[in-house]
Amino acid sequence: MRSGTNFPAVGGYNKAVILDAIRRAPTGISRVEVAERTGLSAQTATNVCRRLIADGLICETGTVIAGPGKPRRILELRRDGRYAIGIHLDPSVITVVLLDLSGAVVAHTTIPTTVSVEVDNVIDLVATAVERVVADSAVDAARIIGAGVAAPGPIDTASGSVINPPLLESWGRVPVREALAGRLAMPVLLEKDVTAAAVAENWAGESDGNFVFFYYGTGVGVGIALQNEVIRGSSGNSGEVGSLLVGGGGVTHPVTGRWRLGEAIMPSNVVRRARGLGLLASGEESGHETDLAAFQAIASLAGAGEEAALSLVDDIADDIAEGLVSIIDLLDVGRVVFGGPFWSPLSALLLERIPARISDSRYLVLPHVISFVEATVGQDVAATGAACLVLDHALSPRPQTLLISHSAT
Amino acid sequence: MRSGTNFPAVGGYNKAVILDAIRRAPTGISRVEVAERTGLSAQTATNVCRRLIADGLICETGTVIAGPGKPRRILELRRDGRYAIGIHLDPSVITVVLLDLSGAVVAHTTIPTTVSVEVDNVIDLVATAVERVVADSAVDAARIIGAGVAAPGPIDTASGSVINPPLLESWGRVPVREALAGRLAMPVLLEKDVTAAAVAENWAGESDGNFVFFYYGTGVGVGIALQNEVIRGSSGNSGEVGSLLVGGGGVTHPVTGRWRLGEAIMPSNVVRRARGLGLLASGEESGHETDLAAFQAIASLAGAGEEAALSLVDDIADDIAEGLVSIIDLLDVGRVVFGGPFWSPLSALLLERIPARISDSRYLVLPHVISFVEATVGQDVAATGAACLVLDHALSPRPQTLLISHSAT
Repeated sequence: MRSGTNFPAVGGYNKAVILDAIRRAPTGISRVEVAERTGLSAQTATNVCRRLIADGLICETGTVIAGPGKPRRILELRRDGRYAIGIHLDPSVITVVLLDLSGAVVAHTTIPTTVSVEVDNVIDLVATAVERVVADSAVDAARIIGAGVAAPGPIDTASGSVINPPLLESWGRVPVREALAGRLAMPVLLEKDVTAAAVAENWAGESDGNFVFFYYGTGVGVGIALQNEVIRGSSGNSGEVGSLLVGGGGVTHPVTGRWRLGEAIMPSNVVRRARGLGLLASGEESGHETDLAAFQAIASLAGAGEEAALSLVDDIADDIAEGLVSIIDLLDVGRVVFGGPFWSPLSALLLERIPARISDSRYLVLPHVISFVEATVGQDVAATGAACLVLDHALSPRPQTLLISHSAT
Repeated sequence: MRSGTNFPAVGGYNKAVILDAIRRAPTGISRVEVAERTGLSAQTATNVCRRLIADGLICETGTVIAGPGKPRRILELRRDGRYAIGIHLDPSVITVVLLDLSGAVVAHTTIPTTVSVEVDNVIDLVATAVERVVADSAVDAARIIGAGVAAPGPIDTASGSVINPPLLESWGRVPVREALAGRLAMPVLLEKDVTAAAVAENWAGESDGNFVFFYYGTGVGVGIALQNEVIRGSSGNSGEVGSLLVGGGGVTHPVTGRWRLGEAIMPSNVVRRARGLGLLASGEESGHETDLAAFQAIASLAGAGEEAALSLVDDIADDIAEGLVSIIDLLDVGRVVFGGPFWSPLSALLLERIPARISDSRYLVLPHVISFVEATVGQDVAATGAACLVLDHALSPRPQTLLISHSAT
């Protein structure tokens, strides 16, 4: 027999199923339709809806006359019924968003991360930013159900810690979840940034729930959604693709002889190579802002037909395509979504190149068409996804995560 | 909003949830416990159990006295209540199994596949084998709910066809599902062999539902189970790993310069290399039986300490380990299960080598221990998994597949 599948208790389950049906009906839905769509009895639907109204999660917005019976009252999600905070701890910038119950961003702020800053200071910075976002939005703080933190992996979900976050060398092993839950006095969950990005894209709803989100940030990673569930992995660390062997532009790797995707297209390496090719002025220190500016310069040069810049973009496209062929073969996804800060400057150039390289690969086994798109959600994608996870956890019949901390003081 | 998640109607859902709870209680369960474990009301549990008894899916097996109330009657799954057929269309051997409702194999047969045989003959051979298995088992044919076919990918799930199955060159695109459903007069589903193998392993229950099944057959592939669901992919073709770049024993590939996992460890290539090294007599034609015997010979030589044989086994272990590091990084699975006909002869030798190579890899990102085991289910694993899928489809509240054909005549 299979083991380990736990079905949610049907009592709480009914409430979640009904709330979900109402969420999925943006123009409203009657109690009769709720019963039809969920398979629950009319009496159960009515009872559960009464509780949801009392909880402030849904409201009645009008009536419709359908047939000879009495007019049906229309139920809608109360967008202002609950809120969630999303925080993205990027090596270079911290993003904070506030989402309403429908998943819309109602407030947002960013603060630059100073490299190697003290842990306590970062927690302080984040907490202050959250408090400012909440204050500015004039949202009732009692309606905020929790905060989600998206952080670079690896993470330790058991302790809610980030482990040696890249470019935050002094951090080591930081119990972000506990620290923030204590400071914010609300439940906090921790998720890997690429996984959170996939959650946001899955909520945004353009997809059939079967895609990889290729995130091109300070490092590269993928968020994975399969069969309508975002895949977190057994330790919450799925989506590492840096170890995939790739061509690396046909040049032999100076040390190991073989290029891996993470190293080959790492922004700092791309910038170094562009400087070596004379595309960019040399000498400037590498960092998030200078690397981003360098990517924009490379994109401009390639867009203007500069040969060496085009060749560099071709190599990046080759390596991403080669890695993606293996990922697509393994997971059989029909859609690849691209995003992240270092994707944006090259987006048009790479979207002209990568799809054909993948479709034409003799190693692509799948007998179907794959779509390639830029992410629906923009730069806030990981923070938004982290907040979506909080809403999912509280409201969905199939929560994407069970990691809400109960350590809020 | 997320789209595309369809919740099962709660009416049918309750029946499936209760049957599932009873399946998971091998020593029986009372109606009161059924209600407790499912969260359903006592009245609903009683009503649904009455219907399940009438359907012949469960039975009462005794009573227990628990406290001052009246004695509780114990419910158990009727193992003989329903059966399912599983068929594995391997390039070299066709396996047919008959499973009871508990997932136990009650009958089994194999027939050799002749390479390039006519399609109609193969369908005939399979149908005859199924009829013989059913007749020999003396099972009431009316209790057989369907047949599952496991076939090498790629498959076309829409039409229920296999597409150019390897080593069955004359096949092209064969509508296996329709052809067998017509001949057997029962619903038939089609699944990729490695996916079926993962289903069987997931049913066997040693796992936490988060693993990859590395299948070493005429080709290599993986079955993937994540978060307790076997991953089929958007077209049913997940699990292709042949394109992963690997070291290939440090020798430059004669044509492309780079080795890929599928080619590097393909049994026929391994055998050719062993002959080139003088480990095996040359000249004999390559084929499933001769290749299997050659693998056994290589294993014996390596076991006896023959240097060239050990080096060959080392190279195979290196390549599998290198591919698995990328797969584990991507999916964050805590368990790797190995199986398939060409795994068996080398199992002990490879299980001595692969785990350390993976754990010691500088490219493994995961912060946790990974377990490596040989498959619980033996050589019938893909056929057994295909039959499990039929049971899942009919009985589970979260069917692994919705591919049951309704084309039975």
